[in-house]
Amino acid sequence: MEEKEISQAVVSRLPRYFRYLGELKDEGIERVSSQELSDIMRVTASQIRQDLNNFGGFGQQGYGYNVGYLYDEIGKILGLNKEHRLIIIGAGHLGQALVNYMNFERRGFIFKGIFDIDTQLHGTQIRGIAVRPMQEMEQFVRENDIDIAVLTIPKSSAIEIAEQLVSYGIKGIWNFAHVDLHVPKGVQVENVHLSDSLMKLSYNLVSRKG
Amino acid sequence: MEEKEISQAVVSRLPRYFRYLGELKDEGIERVSSQELSDIMRVTASQIRQDLNNFGGFGQQGYGYNVGYLYDEIGKILGLNKEHRLIIIGAGHLGQALVNYMNFERRGFIFKGIFDIDTQLHGTQIRGIAVRPMQEMEQFVRENDIDIAVLTIPKSSAIEIAEQLVSYGIKGIWNFAHVDLHVPKGVQVENVHLSDSLMKLSYNLVSRKG
Repeated sequence: MEEKEISQAVVSRLPRYFRYLGELKDEGIERVSSQELSDIMRVTASQIRQDLNNFGGFGQQGYGYNVGYLYDEIGKILGLNKEHRLIIIGAGHLGQALVNYMNFERRGFIFKGIFDIDTQLHGTQIRGIAVRPMQEMEQFVRENDIDIAVLTIPKSSAIEIAEQLVSYGIKGIWNFAHVDLHVPKGVQVENVHLSDSLMKLSYNLVSRKG
Repeated sequence: MEEKEISQAVVSRLPRYFRYLGELKDEGIERVSSQELSDIMRVTASQIRQDLNNFGGFGQQGYGYNVGYLYDEIGKILGLNKEHRLIIIGAGHLGQALVNYMNFERRGFIFKGIFDIDTQLHGTQIRGIAVRPMQEMEQFVRENDIDIAVLTIPKSSAIEIAEQLVSYGIKGIWNFAHVDLHVPKGVQVENVHLSDSLMKLSYNLVSRKG
């Protein structure tokens, strides 16, 4: 398939298509119409057709979509056919939760190293991966072809650590610290601001009543 | 201040304003111009003026915004002046990470109960909160005026548990399970789909190169 510019709005919906198609595939379903997808995903069939048309002729009038093919193609677009090599900075509960979540590995996101400032943790293992001192980070990133760093550290140190990581060649940062990171062009940051999410829920709870 | 309909786009930006204003407040800064806010938040001053105009006359030509007042008002709009009472279902690493994150409590989100199917965990405590069996959930929700349930459980059980919680009177669900929940009108769901977020990062990494 040829590469084509896809809008960020469509991109942000792709993981959801990927998830639903994966479930259909697991159930042994080989084809699905946009109307059937519409029913299970609760978006309009026309939205689905528009979104999937971005990737060329996956659908066929009267046949629908080939589930396995569409699943694979969306996976490729999402970069899931390539292995990503991750390190995680911060071996606290959140860091442990992420390292222990097996589904990431199934999608090609492989945790290679864990770093923490707490000397007590050095040498301990999380799912077989040793926790290392921060001083080893640079060499580890350079030697192990790491492309994504996950930050599960307090905001006070996140900006400085992110700058270091970028200087070591990290191209993607999955940021859980509650601070905005400013990185050079060419470096991608994806934020998970848990407090913001909880505040949105709170707003919707309160305004529903108001 | 009078209540007014605010677009979801603005709502989703409010936590970020709240965060920056809180930092200015902590630094003892009493007023800020939209241009100064623009510089530190890296959005246009006109966007800031438009967003904050939704809440009436916080700003004054030549004076700027009163940091403390604006901080408090945005906090009220976000429902942070009211206490929210939470339970968490799933005492794994992610659940523990959330319970241990002190900032939520500082914002009025109080964890009251933790539930898990694992009998080995029952009676153990996380930050002083006992882990309880699922069978006690209904009574606990009804007796403790719980308004938010946090789901850190596998997708296989999330839909059923969410239905139960709604029948017990839960009005808000903060959902970390990787599945879409369909809830009745009047119940609010806020999703944190970590896999989707990681896939978006992967897309941006791959398409940057492509």
